[in-house]
Amino acid sequence: MLVRVSGRSRHHRTVDFDERRNCVRLIEQRLLPHTFKVVSIPDHVATAAAIRDMVVRGAGAIGATAAYGLAQGARAFGGRGLTGFTRHVERVFQTLAAARPTAVDLVNAMIQVRERMQSGTTVTERQRLALAAARAFADEDVAHCEALGRQGASLIREGMRVLTHCNAGWLAFVDIGTATAPLYAAQAEGRNFHVFCDETRPRCQGASLTAWELAQQGISHQIIADNAAGHLMQRGEIDLVIVGSDRVLGRTGEVANKIGTYTKAVLAAHHGIPFYVAIPLSTIDWNLRRGRDIPIEEREEAEVLGAWGVTTSVSRSGKAIRRYVRIANPTSGARNPGFDVTPAELITGIITPAGVFPPGELWGRRLELGGAFRPA
Amino acid sequence: MLVRVSGRSRHHRTVDFDERRNCVRLIEQRLLPHTFKVVSIPDHVATAAAIRDMVVRGAGAIGATAAYGLAQGARAFGGRGLTGFTRHVERVFQTLAAARPTAVDLVNAMIQVRERMQSGTTVTERQRLALAAARAFADEDVAHCEALGRQGASLIREGMRVLTHCNAGWLAFVDIGTATAPLYAAQAEGRNFHVFCDETRPRCQGASLTAWELAQQGISHQIIADNAAGHLMQRGEIDLVIVGSDRVLGRTGEVANKIGTYTKAVLAAHHGIPFYVAIPLSTIDWNLRRGRDIPIEEREEAEVLGAWGVTTSVSRSGKAIRRYVRIANPTSGARNPGFDVTPAELITGIITPAGVFPPGELWGRRLELGGAFRPA
Repeated sequence: MLVRVSGRSRHHRTVDFDERRNCVRLIEQRLLPHTFKVVSIPDHVATAAAIRDMVVRGAGAIGATAAYGLAQGARAFGGRGLTGFTRHVERVFQTLAAARPTAVDLVNAMIQVRERMQSGTTVTERQRLALAAARAFADEDVAHCEALGRQGASLIREGMRVLTHCNAGWLAFVDIGTATAPLYAAQAEGRNFHVFCDETRPRCQGASLTAWELAQQGISHQIIADNAAGHLMQRGEIDLVIVGSDRVLGRTGEVANKIGTYTKAVLAAHHGIPFYVAIPLSTIDWNLRRGRDIPIEEREEAEVLGAWGVTTSVSRSGKAIRRYVRIANPTSGARNPGFDVTPAELITGIITPAGVFPPGELWGRRLELGGAFRPA
Repeated sequence: MLVRVSGRSRHHRTVDFDERRNCVRLIEQRLLPHTFKVVSIPDHVATAAAIRDMVVRGAGAIGATAAYGLAQGARAFGGRGLTGFTRHVERVFQTLAAARPTAVDLVNAMIQVRERMQSGTTVTERQRLALAAARAFADEDVAHCEALGRQGASLIREGMRVLTHCNAGWLAFVDIGTATAPLYAAQAEGRNFHVFCDETRPRCQGASLTAWELAQQGISHQIIADNAAGHLMQRGEIDLVIVGSDRVLGRTGEVANKIGTYTKAVLAAHHGIPFYVAIPLSTIDWNLRRGRDIPIEEREEAEVLGAWGVTTSVSRSGKAIRRYVRIANPTSGARNPGFDVTPAELITGIITPAGVFPPGELWGRRLELGGAFRPA
């Protein structure tokens, strides 16, 4: 999407690749919304670290980063022997896979790249195929989000007030995003609507990233504390909820997403408000049988005990100074589960590039939706 | 309760009065949990500002502060004429009443002080009676919280995991607190339990004040993001919820409390977890007919757009430096309702100094519970 820097708008993807320098290029999302910066990541170990440390986050963006990271690692192999190369690629794969255990897209993306490499008969050929496959993955991600926007646009009617949680916007994908795709599509179709962005503690991706995206696009929006959505629903001020997901179980329709999503789904069901989950098909996990088996990251306590923000003071270079402040009592600890799992009965529909379906219908449509599943 | 300062424990009340200097004395709660400081407030205008700016917050503490503030204002009157004095007291009353529109205790406390002054036949006598009435209000607040602790203690069983929201602890009252009173009583009876403190955005009173209180008392606890309670309930990790309230409607059993309370009540009902509201009797509003008529403060956007905390750096005096950091996108605004209203059907029981009652039973017990209500 377009980014306004120093008064000029320029198109950027969230994740890109510099072939000449073998670098993954990422928008440094931890500096947003205060500073816009693109960073070049020199090797796959640093790419894994960027995923782990959330320079890049969000299902699709992580997938594309891992795809490029695997290609980057493969291309850094200096030998000529296919056996050594395969062992090397496997190590790269494992390093990247360990960076975020909950995100299924990360592994799916790398499996796709690894498979497409196999047709090469030399190391050089496989290296070339790896990069082509990673590029194809990124381009498909964009095409999927475009299709998803077309499928979901009609849900956003004139004058609606829409709640979103966390950031499933273009910053979470290669471009366009999922939860935001129907919004951008409805805007393109000329409709006016208002978006409430949950701030999404502890990392506040809603307040910082989604609000930044919507502001760039000129979409009417306000940030709310995560505590306020229930009150607004009770007062009839929210008409629709759209969120993204890190993993949807194809067998059960359960949805793993940022902590707090489940709470919003319970609230929406209590108030009879439609609750939609927007995903690319790659987010569907056709294998796992129960939401309880999805690993839930317990993240570091410091995220809950404080917050990152900028002070009003500026450095000599004129940049806002980003600081961590401790909010909590200094002698207290925290629990910090990063994700939660929402059961199918709380979800009105899953918005996919192939259509909008009740979560219970995914399994019946597994062939149509391209589910590569292992039989039981 | 006891406060540990420089290794020594000393008893403090949240709100007190210095008769000689005609000063209201308050624990400066905006500096907690990082710095413990007691401030002296020199006149009733400054006392109203302290209430408005949240130097002091919480139903009982605001009530006692307003009671002392009214006495303070009355005692500052230099004349001898009762007519002029009465007009002066009315102005003081209105100044203090305007400081926080949602808190019913504030007005109730001042009505009590104003009524008890009436038996005096001279200005001096009424001034003396005003202070005596304010002191009696504060002492009754403490006695009520003690009784409330006795009534609610048996709800906290060995090994339980209890969720609280915001701060209805001793810092929200003159001493002991309401939501915390059963915890402190159960601890005194030798039981072990664990408390999850909702951080309670946007002002984070749970992370800062409740966690500070529990740490001082040596009660096992962890802070969680407001987003995490639903997940913990789903996983069976929360057995009971206790919150306080700023206003309970005696006619309907509806509960106004810090934004986010309603969300926790919906979640608790969804999971079959008992949800209790602990209040002194003064919090019951016997007049208002509908929760929708409770005025909900829309507070300033900056609270949602950023947070107050301390950096790791310290000033020359060795004190932690308290800073506001902007978290949100700089070109976005916010909605910030300060309270919400929970309907009776989501509440298991109201813990009062006179017993634990289902919310629907309050009205039937209005004489027993001392309801001063106007007939329709």
